[in-house]
Amino acid sequence: MKDRSRWLPIAQARAPFWAGVDLGGTNIKVGLVDDDGRTVAFHTEKTLVDRGPEDVCRRMGESVRTVAELAGVALSDIPRAGLGTPGPQDLKAGFIIRAGNFPGFDGFNVRDRVSHHAGLPVTFANDATAAGFGEHWIGAAAHLESLVLLTLGTGVGGSIVIGEATIDGANSHASECGHILVDPAPTARMCPCGKRGHLEAYASAKSLVAMARERIDAGTAAGLTQAVAGGAELTPELVWAQAKTGDAASLELIDTVARWLGIGITTLLHTLDPAIVLLGGAMTFGGEPDPVGHAFLERIRAEVRERAFPLLVERTPIRFATLGGDAGYVGAAGMARAEHLRLHPSDA
Amino acid sequence: MKDRSRWLPIAQARAPFWAGVDLGGTNIKVGLVDDDGRTVAFHTEKTLVDRGPEDVCRRMGESVRTVAELAGVALSDIPRAGLGTPGPQDLKAGFIIRAGNFPGFDGFNVRDRVSHHAGLPVTFANDATAAGFGEHWIGAAAHLESLVLLTLGTGVGGSIVIGEATIDGANSHASECGHILVDPAPTARMCPCGKRGHLEAYASAKSLVAMARERIDAGTAAGLTQAVAGGAELTPELVWAQAKTGDAASLELIDTVARWLGIGITTLLHTLDPAIVLLGGAMTFGGEPDPVGHAFLERIRAEVRERAFPLLVERTPIRFATLGGDAGYVGAAGMARAEHLRLHPSDA
Repeated sequence: MKDRSRWLPIAQARAPFWAGVDLGGTNIKVGLVDDDGRTVAFHTEKTLVDRGPEDVCRRMGESVRTVAELAGVALSDIPRAGLGTPGPQDLKAGFIIRAGNFPGFDGFNVRDRVSHHAGLPVTFANDATAAGFGEHWIGAAAHLESLVLLTLGTGVGGSIVIGEATIDGANSHASECGHILVDPAPTARMCPCGKRGHLEAYASAKSLVAMARERIDAGTAAGLTQAVAGGAELTPELVWAQAKTGDAASLELIDTVARWLGIGITTLLHTLDPAIVLLGGAMTFGGEPDPVGHAFLERIRAEVRERAFPLLVERTPIRFATLGGDAGYVGAAGMARAEHLRLHPSDA
Repeated sequence: MKDRSRWLPIAQARAPFWAGVDLGGTNIKVGLVDDDGRTVAFHTEKTLVDRGPEDVCRRMGESVRTVAELAGVALSDIPRAGLGTPGPQDLKAGFIIRAGNFPGFDGFNVRDRVSHHAGLPVTFANDATAAGFGEHWIGAAAHLESLVLLTLGTGVGGSIVIGEATIDGANSHASECGHILVDPAPTARMCPCGKRGHLEAYASAKSLVAMARERIDAGTAAGLTQAVAGGAELTPELVWAQAKTGDAASLELIDTVARWLGIGITTLLHTLDPAIVLLGGAMTFGGEPDPVGHAFLERIRAEVRERAFPLLVERTPIRFATLGGDAGYVGAAGMARAEHLRLHPSDA
């Protein structure tokens, strides 16, 4: 757990406790949080996806017991655990479908197997959705009635939370805000999903790198060309570093990403009118304190200002998320709590 | 009430009853429906908006009493009424804001005044949202968990219903699906809302007429030019009639509307994953039985097929709504029922 500011000594914690599991392609993160969402124990280990789904689920379940032991909390004080995984999923059935990074997981009931190994009922969630729920519970959207979160990473994830409900869809495919159609032109960029013109084709780390590569090839990115020739890897971090030195091409690339995000966010404002829009994930260029991150956010806001209803422009903050890499497990734990309270209203 | 097939003799009705009021710029429609949404009495009268908000609200409230009398139902058997009005609104405060067609209504609490005159508690709703709730309750989306409805009229209205909840937004501005940003080009068509590239700028009756006018002016719409020269008014109905005769320009215009709708619907599928997408309103070209209406719907489906996730294309029906002009008051009544059951769960 990177940020220890949300870490709480167990003596100050408020029971009951909730476990959250965040399954990634590289790492499993497991946290135990108290009833106010404050972390009292954390454990992480490599996913080792090649060991197969049963092994991964066993270790996720055991990690829930591990964090309980680390915190000195009895399993009987943890009513439920939450599990967030990458999609696409069948949330009702409890499994991941057709996820290239998780061979053998298609149709394997991860929810029930983690539940078995943890010895707790499990709430199954999309990882991006869980991250949004985390921000809603204790992060940048705490005390607000709703939010949209765009997670800018390798791809572009989305989360829509309204009240205590997440928007999951009839087929577990809602909140895929990375696939808002932003460019209807036949020449629009190809999205990794195989269709043209989706937001992810313009606003993901992968797209930024692809657009940077195109500029290098076209000879219109002297700074980046020089850096890459000097051995640097072409990454969003390199573009960010170059932008900080004032490199025009890098600044333009980041400006382009921001512009497309503003176009997608306009549609989100008009269809969902959330209380706040958050941007999270690795590709936020250092966040608001960083001059590049600040300019990025301002450019997004300017684009929305030009395209959206003035009332919503005025009333809807657009900000960076605050939970970072903790959002996933905190949100999964929060969703477990919300489901428990729905099932047992007398516990509220 | 145009369609008497949903009309029910009072002897077959199931209590309690729910009143629905649909406020339009021209007409007020008021219906009384039974607990299964079947209409037992209906009344309509001119809105006469120039008489001012108090007069309009008094007549809406009295009309609720009128339909109760028509059906022979005691007011005590009607727990609540629903009121749908055009937006934009402040739903929490109970009034219409800045609606050009309703001078004097800005800030006037229509919800409380109708409640006063009807002698019933009133649920306040957006008219497009109410229409979607009607389709959800007893129309084309009955027994489905969610829907998106696009209402193609002078403008393009939207309704998003998930479970028993309508998506209203933090500022009563959600579900404005007519303002999905479909065209980011600087040359995009201007939307009546004052911003460029929104769906309504391409898929409303007003836009269709504007695009037809442009073709006439450009000399690329011989059939329409001749019809207009012969005294016909340039309306969606004229374009539809010309399309039925095989007029190429008219068919292309309807094709263009369908294409833009498919682009907007793609975004709605990826963000909301509704169980069904419905198209309602006056501009549906005779509906599915009409060859033009059929081609229109097929063109929309084809566009979505090209742009959306295959799983959602396969699983999400795109159909015409079925309640027509009754959707508004039926849905307002249904929303009143849903709110009553939320407030009084023991009545469920």
